[in-house]
Amino acid sequence: MQGTPSQQRPAATAYPPTERTVPTRSPDRAAYDKELVHAILDEGYVCHLGFVRDGAPVVLPTLYGRVGERLYVHGSTGSRPLRAAGQAEPGLPVCLTVTHVDGLVLARSAFHHSINYRSVVVHGPAYDVTDPEEKRQALDALVDHVVPGRAADSRPADKKELAATAVIRLDLNEVSAKLRTGGVNDEPEDLALPHWAGVVPLRRGYDTPLADPGLAPGTELPDYLAAL
Amino acid sequence: MQGTPSQQRPAATAYPPTERTVPTRSPDRAAYDKELVHAILDEGYVCHLGFVRDGAPVVLPTLYGRVGERLYVHGSTGSRPLRAAGQAEPGLPVCLTVTHVDGLVLARSAFHHSINYRSVVVHGPAYDVTDPEEKRQALDALVDHVVPGRAADSRPADKKELAATAVIRLDLNEVSAKLRTGGVNDEPEDLALPHWAGVVPLRRGYDTPLADPGLAPGTELPDYLAAL
Repeated sequence: MQGTPSQQRPAATAYPPTERTVPTRSPDRAAYDKELVHAILDEGYVCHLGFVRDGAPVVLPTLYGRVGERLYVHGSTGSRPLRAAGQAEPGLPVCLTVTHVDGLVLARSAFHHSINYRSVVVHGPAYDVTDPEEKRQALDALVDHVVPGRAADSRPADKKELAATAVIRLDLNEVSAKLRTGGVNDEPEDLALPHWAGVVPLRRGYDTPLADPGLAPGTELPDYLAAL
Repeated sequence: MQGTPSQQRPAATAYPPTERTVPTRSPDRAAYDKELVHAILDEGYVCHLGFVRDGAPVVLPTLYGRVGERLYVHGSTGSRPLRAAGQAEPGLPVCLTVTHVDGLVLARSAFHHSINYRSVVVHGPAYDVTDPEEKRQALDALVDHVVPGRAADSRPADKKELAATAVIRLDLNEVSAKLRTGGVNDEPEDLALPHWAGVVPLRRGYDTPLADPGLAPGTELPDYLAAL
């Protein structure tokens, strides 16, 4: 089937909006551009994973990694959502959300206080990853998502560790980003009020790495960590 | 009934664990102490709120505030979860999760990589707040949760704004904290490996506030913002 017209088309650059990825409020803040979604996802490493258990929602913080159009989440094979994903057919319905807070928006009126943020919400079925090669690649992606370059500078998981680790996959199909940027939006009649208004940007970063006291002699802080 | 033995007892200092607040994995990381839970909640202002819509989980980032043993979340009266809470009887089942990442734990082995974090997970029904006084107090708490002292230094919501704002309440009954602190836990046989290992602490803070260009003449940066 190579060379058919549909295959010659460039890959879509945006995720198609669906009923649940179009917000009922502030639709102007929603975005579906793949590059933007990837950038937001790649800037973080902790997501909030939602699933339904006994009819009630559960939201847990967990690490994630991205390989192309797939997200991976890992955990112990004993963890409840990962066990459920392994058993569910066809996959466990999840919602994976990543949020970066960029600034506090302080308006003159309490009502117009807001937050500058960028978030991505992914809906879809999560599948247990059983292929050993995909699992290994996913675990590398998870480590490199936290610290780029780290997977190659650590001992890879051995067979026993791989067996103890469950990995679930969530494809990027039903995806939206939501953003708020910019300054204060006060009502015109409030502009003369004596309250300070503006944006307080958040600072993100790392403090000096604290070496484990038992490092092998001569082990230096690697460049990829010094660069953080 | 005043003075009965049960009323003379001091208020419980911990949330009673329930089937869903006792983790299947790493139960040693779970905590139920109220002071600890309050401290984690009060350090943040963005939560991830999970609810079930058409049988599937939805997780959205949103602001929250705390007043004693009650959490408040607000939004437009047009937003889906808030509308659902208003209609649900007896309340909308939600899961509200707050997470602080404190450090990256880089082990010699990929398997023992981890994150130092503190999180709180609250389960329960969310109720629409209809009492005007409770609503006003909740909105003040929401603003003050982001910047302590700010609610008193902004124009309070007027009737129209109050009517356009939905507030939902979630009581702190079924609550757990989960924490990971400390250093690297490598396998003894990995200690001699030449990989750097240790903890990279996260730094949180704010950059210089950016004043709105239209501030009323003579409006200075307030002390509570300079202190951030």
